[in-house]
Amino acid sequence: MTNAFPPNQQFRLAARPVGMPRREDWDFHEEAVGEAPDGGIVVKVLYLSLDPAMRGWMNEGKSYIRPVAIGEVMRAGGLGVVVASKSPRFAVGDHVAGGTGVQRYWVGQADDKTAFVKIDPAAAPLTAWLNTLGMPGMTAFFGLREVGQPKAGETVVVSGAAGAVGMTVGQVAKKMGCRVVGIAGGLDKCRFVVEELGFDACIDYKAGSVHAGLKEHCPQGVDVYFDNVGGEILDAVLTRINMKARIVICGAISQYNATEKVKGPANYLALLVNRARMEGMVVFDYAPRYAEGVATLAGWMREGSVKSIEYVTGGFERFPEALLMLFEGKNLGKLVLKVADA
Amino acid sequence: MTNAFPPNQQFRLAARPVGMPRREDWDFHEEAVGEAPDGGIVVKVLYLSLDPAMRGWMNEGKSYIRPVAIGEVMRAGGLGVVVASKSPRFAVGDHVAGGTGVQRYWVGQADDKTAFVKIDPAAAPLTAWLNTLGMPGMTAFFGLREVGQPKAGETVVVSGAAGAVGMTVGQVAKKMGCRVVGIAGGLDKCRFVVEELGFDACIDYKAGSVHAGLKEHCPQGVDVYFDNVGGEILDAVLTRINMKARIVICGAISQYNATEKVKGPANYLALLVNRARMEGMVVFDYAPRYAEGVATLAGWMREGSVKSIEYVTGGFERFPEALLMLFEGKNLGKLVLKVADA
Repeated sequence: MTNAFPPNQQFRLAARPVGMPRREDWDFHEEAVGEAPDGGIVVKVLYLSLDPAMRGWMNEGKSYIRPVAIGEVMRAGGLGVVVASKSPRFAVGDHVAGGTGVQRYWVGQADDKTAFVKIDPAAAPLTAWLNTLGMPGMTAFFGLREVGQPKAGETVVVSGAAGAVGMTVGQVAKKMGCRVVGIAGGLDKCRFVVEELGFDACIDYKAGSVHAGLKEHCPQGVDVYFDNVGGEILDAVLTRINMKARIVICGAISQYNATEKVKGPANYLALLVNRARMEGMVVFDYAPRYAEGVATLAGWMREGSVKSIEYVTGGFERFPEALLMLFEGKNLGKLVLKVADA
Repeated sequence: MTNAFPPNQQFRLAARPVGMPRREDWDFHEEAVGEAPDGGIVVKVLYLSLDPAMRGWMNEGKSYIRPVAIGEVMRAGGLGVVVASKSPRFAVGDHVAGGTGVQRYWVGQADDKTAFVKIDPAAAPLTAWLNTLGMPGMTAFFGLREVGQPKAGETVVVSGAAGAVGMTVGQVAKKMGCRVVGIAGGLDKCRFVVEELGFDACIDYKAGSVHAGLKEHCPQGVDVYFDNVGGEILDAVLTRINMKARIVICGAISQYNATEKVKGPANYLALLVNRARMEGMVVFDYAPRYAEGVATLAGWMREGSVKSIEYVTGGFERFPEALLMLFEGKNLGKLVLKVADA
């Protein structure tokens, strides 16, 4: 079998990392691009989404999704353009987003599992479909509204505020009439969060005490905390929650590379004192409602009240290093790996 | 001023304990019983309720209720008989329950703050009003039903299963059609929980691994966990929760005397994976609905399907030692201090 495409390149999981993933944990693999199967498609990947959750998928053990197997192409969300199609649903030239994996070409049946959806490149810049109109945006939109349930006038705190999810959480909370305080690492990020994204304040956890920052910027206490980081920041926020506060557990980036046992929130009894709630969320549960989330957020983007900001890096062969940028906190906005030009 | 009563005796808080309260942390005080003020009453205390929460009230710091002040009579729930009345609401001979404090006579205005209520000694044995029909029963009834929200067929796990709250949690969960598994310390307690209270199983955390016990006795996982203890047991249960599980944080007796920092639940990310919830509850929030709880539980007691079991110890002057029994895990059923005969 031959075709017109250059060889496919893939990053496969070679070993389960201990702590931060190293280059040796990856197998760079090259093979010919297969033919589209009957009913299937070939997608040329243009952009890949780099997400903290990817670190979790590399670990063994029960989680909300099965781990990536050793030897398997690393799981990742991506978007691209259909370059071959034997499917009635997709035409060559269509833009699609879905579970492409970390590779240059995706070949297969576009079934429910990979969840490819057509995207409209005219509705928003392509990369926004991996950010505000993609998984991070859906996570923020449904996690905040359905689990956090903020009311106008309440104070919403979000950690990882300059990251993909936090960025949108804060902007949506502003739309809902809340006071919004971000937590992020470094002056650049905090400035970005306040000046670019319009949060009311941002606490730099690298510059000083989060506890003092919360006291200063949340004079009425914290009603909703959207937690992307866990660890000591979660513990600090617990000391400032209000009665009936809601804590959305969305992630724990501070713990993902931990080689020691995860640090539990020592102040969890604040939940008791304040009759408060801590609840986990996984975005996939809201899949039947993504269209609602996309429509709402795209509308807000068009009117200019919500920004989708991506930090695009490249190229494909730098995937291992690019992934680490997430944990080094280098990106302002959603980290996206550019794989190819359209 | 003189009257017919022997001197009042009181335990006042002399010092804030570090770790377990010691005898020196108490001031045994004697004074004449005062006259009932206009509109007020004098109550002769018959029984005092001994509760884990009392340990928390002895600490300084923000909590759901103000700390007991140094020099103040120790706060406690109790019940007794009205021996003098200038109130239109209470007659001499009435039985009442409320915040008597640790003393032989309570004198004052029976206002909202002390929350004295008339109890019917014909409806249930007197001590049941400090147990199933009192605060522990209300905590169990509303905490389980309103926060835990178990459905028939689900598995409910409760720690401190032989204690006042846990005892009723399990029995109410059985009434609701659930599989009920207790966790308690020691063979005697576990036997009591299964044989006397009718739980489906009980895990002896002193005899072996709670994790293995949960695996054996909760083959379908855990849907509701009613937590009275915190610490390692909470962590073990977190590894076995089902999707959309509810964890009721009612107390953390394992941590109340801790001189080191409270141990947070290291496995809290199970909340994320399972889209589960951990929520605190304080019984006072349900005060407007106590009548509903009392009526339901008294009905179940009359039909014999719920038991109110008290462990009565005495006498009054042994209060400091009796309180420690809670933390030594010696009581089967609700610990009650007998102060006087009717």
